Amino acid sequence: MRSSVFFYLTYTLCLCLSLLCVLFVICWSSRWRGGFSWDGSALQFNWHPVLMVSGLVVLYGNAAVVYRVPFTWRQRKYTWKLVHAGLMLLSLLVSVLGLCAVFDFHRGFHINDLYSLHSWVGICTVALFAFQWILGLAGFLFPCSSLWFRRNLKPVHVWVGKAILILSLTSCISGINEKLLLALSGEPYSSLPVEAKFANSLGLLIVAFGLVVFGILSINKWQRPETEGEGVHVSMDDSGHRTA
Amino acid sequence: MRSSVFFYLTYTLCLCLSLLCVLFVICWSSRWRGGFSWDGSALQFNWHPVLMVSGLVVLYGNAAVVYRVPFTWRQRKYTWKLVHAGLMLLSLLVSVLGLCAVFDFHRGFHINDLYSLHSWVGICTVALFAFQWILGLAGFLFPCSSLWFRRNLKPVHVWVGKAILILSLTSCISGINEKLLLALSGEPYSSLPVEAKFANSLGLLIVAFGLVVFGILSINKWQRPETEGEGVHVSMDDSGHRTA
Repeated sequence: MRSSVFFYLTYTLCLCLSLLCVLFVICWSSRWRGGFSWDGSALQFNWHPVLMVSGLVVLYGNAAVVYRVPFTWRQRKYTWKLVHAGLMLLSLLVSVLGLCAVFDFHRGFHINDLYSLHSWVGICTVALFAFQWILGLAGFLFPCSSLWFRRNLKPVHVWVGKAILILSLTSCISGINEKLLLALSGEPYSSLPVEAKFANSLGLLIVAFGLVVFGILSINKWQRPETEGEGVHVSMDDSGHRTA
Repeated sequence: MRSSVFFYLTYTLCLCLSLLCVLFVICWSSRWRGGFSWDGSALQFNWHPVLMVSGLVVLYGNAAVVYRVPFTWRQRKYTWKLVHAGLMLLSLLVSVLGLCAVFDFHRGFHINDLYSLHSWVGICTVALFAFQWILGLAGFLFPCSSLWFRRNLKPVHVWVGKAILILSLTSCISGINEKLLLALSGEPYSSLPVEAKFANSLGLLIVAFGLVVFGILSINKWQRPETEGEGVHVSMDDSGHRTA
C-alpha cells in the first residue's frame, strides 16, 4: 500500500514534468522564436524542438512506464501491450515529423544537413527507435513469433529502450544548447538574457523528467506482477531475464 | 561459463572504448586545438575536455563496473569497495580539475561562467557526484553507519549512480557540440571539416562507451554473488533491493 502511494506520487511528478516540458518548449518557440508555420521559413524550424521534446522525450518516457501503473494490472496485459506499442508509434511519428521540420528548413536556407554532433546523435536515436519498434512488433505482438525469440528479445528490448531514452535526452540538451548559441544575437548567450534562462530551465526540466522515468523503471517492486501465461510478454523494466 | 565469456567480451569492448575515448580527446586537443598549458591562456581550456571525458565518463564508468568482473568475486568484497570508492574519488578529483581549467580560462578572457545549458547540466553533474561520493562513504565505508541506513541507501545509491552517468554523457556531448560551434571559424562546422568529423566521432565513442556500461550494469546475472554477511555492501547494479 505504502509502495503504491509512493508510486503514484512519483508518477504524478512524472506527469507534471511532462506537462511542464511541453509547455516550456511551446512557450520558448512562440514567445521568443516567432511562432510556427510549415512553409520552409525560419518559423518551420520552431516545430523541431516542440516535436522532438514532445515525441522523443515526453511521449516516449510515458509510453515506457505504462506497465508500471498499478490500476492497469487488473486488466489484460495484451491491452496494455497495444497501448505501449501505440504510444511508441505515435512518439516515433511525431519525432519523424520533427526531423522533417528541420530538413525542410535547411533546404530553404541552403544549410547542410547532419553536420553537428547533435544531429549525428539525434539521427542515430530515431533510427534505433524505428528499429526497436519494428523488432518489438515482430517479437511481442505478432502471434507467429516463437517463445524462444521472445525470451531472448526481452532483455535486449529493455536495454535498447533505455539506450534510446539516454540518447534522446542527450540529443535534446545538445540541441537546445546549439540553438541558443546560434540564434541569440542581440543579447549574446553569455550574458544570459531571459530567453537563455528560460530555455536552459527547459533543458533542466527535460533532464529531470528523464531521471524520474529511469527511477520508475529501476524499482523492481513497481513492476507489473506476472500471472501465468503472461511470462513472455514484454514490459519496460529492469529485470528482462526474470519473467520472460 | 558461457555467461562469463560473454561478460569478458563485453568488458573488453568497454576497455577498448575507454582507451579510444581518451586517445581521441587528447588527439583532438593537441592536433587541432594547439595542445596544453596551465597559464590561463586558450591552451588551458584544452585540459577541460580531456579531464572531463577521462574523469567524469571513462574513469567513472569503469569504477561503476568493477564489482562485475568475475575474477574479483574470489576476493573480499571490502577490498573492492575500497577500489570502487578510490576510483570514484579519482574520477571526482579529475573532474574538479577539469572545471578549474575552464573557470581559469574564462577568467583570463573575461568570459562569464555558467551561462550555457551545457555548463548548467555539467555543474549539476559534478555537484551530484560529490554528494553521492560523500553519502556513499558515510553509508558504506564508515563502520558506524547502521544496517537500516545502508539498506535504504543502496537503491538510492544505485539510481543516483546511473543518473550521474546519464548527466555526464549529456554534458560531454553538449560540450563537444558547443566547442565545435564556437571554435571552428576558417572552415565552419556546417562544412564538416576533418576536425569536426573527428570530434563528432569522439562524441559517438563516448555515447557507445556509456551504453556499454549501462548494458553491463543491467544484466543481473553479471552481479557479484552475495555471500553471507555481505548483503549490506553496495554494488553498482540494478537490484538495489534484492541484496541489501
